[in-house]
Amino acid sequence: MTVTVSRKAHFNAAHRLFRSDWDDAKNEEVFGKCNNPFYHGHNYDLIVHVTGEIDKKTGYVMDMKVLKDIIKAEIEDAFDHKNLNEQVPEFKDLIPTAENIAVVIWEKLRPHISSDKKLEVTLYETPRNYVVYKG
Amino acid sequence: MTVTVSRKAHFNAAHRLFRSDWDDAKNEEVFGKCNNPFYHGHNYDLIVHVTGEIDKKTGYVMDMKVLKDIIKAEIEDAFDHKNLNEQVPEFKDLIPTAENIAVVIWEKLRPHISSDKKLEVTLYETPRNYVVYKG
Amino acid sequence: MTVTVSRKAHFNAAHRLFRSDWDDAKNEEVFGKCNNPFYHGHNYDLIVHVTGEIDKKTGYVMDMKVLKDIIKAEIEDAFDHKNLNEQVPEFKDLIPTAENIAVVIWEKLRPHISSDKKLEVTLYETPRNYVVYKG
Amino acid sequence: MTVTVSRKAHFNAAHRLFRSDWDDAKNEEVFGKCNNPFYHGHNYDLIVHVTGEIDKKTGYVMDMKVLKDIIKAEIEDAFDHKNLNEQVPEFKDLIPTAENIAVVIWEKLRPHISSDKKLEVTLYETPRNYVVYKG
Amino acid sequence: MTVTVSRKAHFNAAHRLFRSDWDDAKNEEVFGKCNNPFYHGHNYDLIVHVTGEIDKKTGYVMDMKVLKDIIKAEIEDAFDHKNLNEQVPEFKDLIPTAENIAVVIWEKLRPHISSDKKLEVTLYETPRNYVVYKG
Amino acid sequence: MTVTVSRKAHFNAAHRLFRSDWDDAKNEEVFGKCNNPFYHGHNYDLIVHVTGEIDKKTGYVMDMKVLKDIIKAEIEDAFDHKNLNEQVPEFKDLIPTAENIAVVIWEKLRPHISSDKKLEVTLYETPRNYVVYKG
Repeated sequence: MTVTVSRKAHFNAAHRLFRSDWDDAKNEEVFGKCNNPFYHGHNYDLIVHVTGEIDKKTGYVMDMKVLKDIIKAEIEDAFDHKNLNEQVPEFKDLIPTAENIAVVIWEKLRPHISSDKKLEVTLYETPRNYVVYKG
Repeated sequence: MTVTVSRKAHFNAAHRLFRSDWDDAKNEEVFGKCNNPFYHGHNYDLIVHVTGEIDKKTGYVMDMKVLKDIIKAEIEDAFDHKNLNEQVPEFKDLIPTAENIAVVIWEKLRPHISSDKKLEVTLYETPRNYVVYKG
Repeated sequence: MTVTVSRKAHFNAAHRLFRSDWDDAKNEEVFGKCNNPFYHGHNYDLIVHVTGEIDKKTGYVMDMKVLKDIIKAEIEDAFDHKNLNEQVPEFKDLIPTAENIAVVIWEKLRPHISSDKKLEVTLYETPRNYVVYKG
Repeated sequence: MTVTVSRKAHFNAAHRLFRSDWDDAKNEEVFGKCNNPFYHGHNYDLIVHVTGEIDKKTGYVMDMKVLKDIIKAEIEDAFDHKNLNEQVPEFKDLIPTAENIAVVIWEKLRPHISSDKKLEVTLYETPRNYVVYKG
Repeated sequence: MTVTVSRKAHFNAAHRLFRSDWDDAKNEEVFGKCNNPFYHGHNYDLIVHVTGEIDKKTGYVMDMKVLKDIIKAEIEDAFDHKNLNEQVPEFKDLIPTAENIAVVIWEKLRPHISSDKKLEVTLYETPRNYVVYKG
Repeated sequence: MTVTVSRKAHFNAAHRLFRSDWDDAKNEEVFGKCNNPFYHGHNYDLIVHVTGEIDKKTGYVMDMKVLKDIIKAEIEDAFDHKNLNEQVPEFKDLIPTAENIAVVIWEKLRPHISSDKKLEVTLYETPRNYVVYKG
């Protein structure tokens, strides 16, 4: 019996969307006010979904407390109250759009979830905009 | 890397469920209080999901601002503060159930989303009832 | 020990804002798209607040099940799936703005709440607009 | 045209996670504070999803009022304000984890949904933890 | 400049409403299904409100991190995953209605909030029922 | 008949809590990770409450569309996608704590709301932390 278990987490961060190989006019045209050189920020809401068989002994697909601790160690401690462009190495050469942040989160979590389980990441940048990455 | 981006929107409208080729008793039996001839209404919450590859240059699957503007032009301007039965041509001969409204929204949006992307529509009629149409 | 207990309820209705003693241009100017003669509608979310002393015997300010039943009988059964202008007598000569609906709800509930308790009504017309009336 | 319709419901219950064939230390190690022998509880939020073709006559995949009544009869009346371990027969020999509760709900609902329709169940144990079972 | 700062927290617990000095029929009549001798439970959502002057130096009424830690130590650690009737001493002779739980929380927090500040407690028993106690 | 009407709005911004007249150790001690020199950010949710008499002619305390436009012009256009410390003049010498932001918003809105009405501001810094300022 295959079930998906989901756990919510959150972090607050600053970011800016721009490419250093584009001039200001091009960055402004593509990224609009998200290109503000002084940054802006969001309360990111993260949902991590793990799909697998129910363990007959425990009734768990995965212990949610363990999943919570992995999310805290890998994502919240690395991203919370940070400037994603300046202080999170994964975004040194990668634009921190919601899409790219979701991919980075998926890649950081994947090694910590057993390989017989499917991993999916939902990331809310605002309550009105969100993205999903399934690997 | 395939990601789904989702954007929320909303509109308020009046509607009524009934078939002119059924008599009152039959309409009452099937549609109950949704058949009220004086109409009732809802705050519809709409989520539009677009799935595609991340553009390497922009980090976007699709510019959310562009998606927001398409939803406004095609759906909000056409449906908001309207009587769906009387004032929205698509429902002249189609019962405006949540299911049918979702299909109409999908069909109105599809030509405006590039054909290499998948489109999906979630429509909340109330916070307790919602429908999903994937085309 | 004075405590406020609050109970949520909801109803869906159609309405229209206009005055029959104003011409179309004046109604349009003041009420904009809320003046649509074919009506529009909302999912109204209602919160009823009752403030009073905790009954030492029961630990209740008021039995929430009783409050729920009063709201159903007086408000939900009267307003749900109705056209407020055409089918709810209180709005025969009163514009069904959120403000006026909240006052009408308060007046309909007041006789059913014991007089040593304070009554307050919160009414959400949309998740972004709401009103509060305290009598 | 295949559409998924979803209906929310809820119930409050007490439960405890433990195995009678494990000793206290083992139960404590695996289930932590969820193993409290005096029980704890949750407000469970349930979303039932039914996928099928839109009926051309009614515009419905399934009458939501009928779905609401099935959920009430099969799930809410059986689980609400109950102790899942002690008072719900399905959990006599099955640990009431969110995963197992979702499977039990799916199995209780399946015979009542016509066999040409797909059934899916989402169960929130808390606003931060939820599970999905698709059969 | 007087501002109210509010902090949300939550705990899950089991409880039962009954009086040992009433017989079963009387308990059933007053408390209905909340009287279930095997208990039921809730996800309680708590909001603690502190009102005071803004400290000119810090721009804070009160450090929210400090408030969060007080709520954790005094309330979450004491109530979470507990049976309120059996395992929380304050309810040994006090019925754990939402009203009484809010009063107990207020009394447990009051000594830890500086006396020049006003304290208020909002407690959600379910998303549809909540209570407020202002001392 | 006095009613309070409330309108929700939102803006995303970066900020940092620190005093230039304190050294790094003191800023770190008081403001913790909110002192990050590279900034972090939030999705601020704003609710503006206006209390006054219902206008007998319109049924409005205040036209919500007018209130929405005032909030957009005075607050959203000034704060959205901005760095509060660097780009919003009111915070040049004022720490942008939630408390101070709420006071600044109130002072910016007050001249635009007629003086016979009461103004109140609720500001969510995160879904778990919020402040209220009543002037």
